[in-house]
Amino acid sequence: MRIAIDGMGGDNSPSAVVEGCVEALKEFKDIEIVITGPEEKLKNELSKYQYDGSRVKIIDATEVIGTNEHPVMALRKKKDSTLNKALKLVKDKECDAVISAGSTGAFLAGCTLVIGRIKGIERPALSPIMPGINGPFIVVDAGANVDCKPQYLKQFAIMGKVYYENVIKVSNPTVALVNIGAEEEKGNELTKETYSLLKDSNLNFVGNIEPRDISNGDVNVVVCDGFVGNTVLKMYEGVASNLLGTIKSEITSSIITKIGALFILPVIKSLKNKFDYKEYGGAPFLGVDGICIKAHGSSDARAFKNAIKQARTFYVNDTLAKLKVELEANTNDKN
Amino acid sequence: MRIAIDGMGGDNSPSAVVEGCVEALKEFKDIEIVITGPEEKLKNELSKYQYDGSRVKIIDATEVIGTNEHPVMALRKKKDSTLNKALKLVKDKECDAVISAGSTGAFLAGCTLVIGRIKGIERPALSPIMPGINGPFIVVDAGANVDCKPQYLKQFAIMGKVYYENVIKVSNPTVALVNIGAEEEKGNELTKETYSLLKDSNLNFVGNIEPRDISNGDVNVVVCDGFVGNTVLKMYEGVASNLLGTIKSEITSSIITKIGALFILPVIKSLKNKFDYKEYGGAPFLGVDGICIKAHGSSDARAFKNAIKQARTFYVNDTLAKLKVELEANTNDKN
Repeated sequence: MRIAIDGMGGDNSPSAVVEGCVEALKEFKDIEIVITGPEEKLKNELSKYQYDGSRVKIIDATEVIGTNEHPVMALRKKKDSTLNKALKLVKDKECDAVISAGSTGAFLAGCTLVIGRIKGIERPALSPIMPGINGPFIVVDAGANVDCKPQYLKQFAIMGKVYYENVIKVSNPTVALVNIGAEEEKGNELTKETYSLLKDSNLNFVGNIEPRDISNGDVNVVVCDGFVGNTVLKMYEGVASNLLGTIKSEITSSIITKIGALFILPVIKSLKNKFDYKEYGGAPFLGVDGICIKAHGSSDARAFKNAIKQARTFYVNDTLAKLKVELEANTNDKN
Repeated sequence: MRIAIDGMGGDNSPSAVVEGCVEALKEFKDIEIVITGPEEKLKNELSKYQYDGSRVKIIDATEVIGTNEHPVMALRKKKDSTLNKALKLVKDKECDAVISAGSTGAFLAGCTLVIGRIKGIERPALSPIMPGINGPFIVVDAGANVDCKPQYLKQFAIMGKVYYENVIKVSNPTVALVNIGAEEEKGNELTKETYSLLKDSNLNFVGNIEPRDISNGDVNVVVCDGFVGNTVLKMYEGVASNLLGTIKSEITSSIITKIGALFILPVIKSLKNKFDYKEYGGAPFLGVDGICIKAHGSSDARAFKNAIKQARTFYVNDTLAKLKVELEANTNDKN
């Protein structure tokens, strides 16, 4: 497969992006990389590594879309941007997937505008896989759609189910609706209506999940509107990082605890890895008619490599075709 | 002051409730307790402790509203419930505050139906004080109102500000709107409209706060609709408790880390206390024309005592009157 890479997206671009690409090329012999960005700069970065040059192509692009720019305006104004050129490679079927660690807003808007939605999909959804205590879970939607209708959430549930099944390899994964109470009648207008849609579907719907239980990872697919999903995601990251940071600074602050720290720091470090979104690489933007992975803005080389791995799994399992079949089947059912 | 206590609310009632009352009576010489519940049962619990009997009164009540009952239906059906009788004590001005660790839904509904709102308040808000890394913060609304209008959120901000100022003793506290981006134009319809209302107010409004930064505690008053606020609260509790639990079990799982654990467990324990909502006792239900504190359902004696302490601080600072003045002033301004 051939993967288009936005070479200038993310806080650590192009260095971490290029390094991640080189690592992925070594690990996966069946991929090729097409990377967009300033040719000289990218060549210079690539020259630091040993890799199979026949599997890498650079597409020169000088404009970069910043995270503070208005997504749609920037996409229209900067036709020659690294992001636009990467998206176009998928649109023109020259590449099978696109990955960017740049502006989330511009990436989401670009995927929809340049590549387009799967027929029948009302709103594509950003769908990161997160580490839970007892296993990974996927959040659909984690921020692409802030004002939602029940029908969108039903599609989120179907897409999350197919993706989880194919990428995490769990058949008939459990699906739950994020709500502020366990009972069916709890929540706001959106959740009440969505609940009955999901109950009547052929999904493995296990009811509402309260935010307190999400990080357990006992439910595989967690469905909500993008505002709530983004809150779930960012609270998770914020609390985990604050807590682990505080523990580390507290146990290295006195002689007595420093002795203990010698034994314990490896545990804290391994936990930090366990709760690290970087392990899963990026968030697929499900519902777009192509494989689109949003890598975290602060991705290092490992995170970027894992985003490439994710795009590859998406591709080799033919997940996009399965997604279309499942959506088609559900459009024809009673809902 | 005289405080009405729902003697049968919460997972550990009546034992933890009664023990918390006795501890509070010892610590605060200026309070009296009126506790509702089955007379014999409460007498029996009280008999375990030494306390000044002249400051405790029992009001016999045999019915209890469960957490799974429909709030309004249960309040209407169980006229003789411990909650109804406690609320009535405030309504009839026989008590200055009411505290319950029972059903949140029934408590919120009961406060509004029996005691009533402050004139001009559209929706009272559940407003817990949470421990942050750099200081406590208050979340308004944390679950009472799942579908909100911008004007409600402006009132939440004003109420949160007055409460924080009087109970945490920080003058002109900072106020931020929970949003999924820092920029003014980010978010959903509700946050966009609320942003301009807050910007034009005389509050110390510092803009949007992203969920990732909430647990830092750098912003004092965090404003959002009740669905998002409940998500913030429950994600905070869930992630913190899961993470600390995992650390504890990991470091006590092998001989080597067990040695380190001897030095470190006190640190984990002190952090657990630092991030413990029990320290702040309960959540005031702001906007009701009375002092109403919802104690956590799993409150132990210390948490319940702290809820009583909170009701007392609310009272001695005359916060309710100040709230009315500030709301009045803001109703007359341009918004």
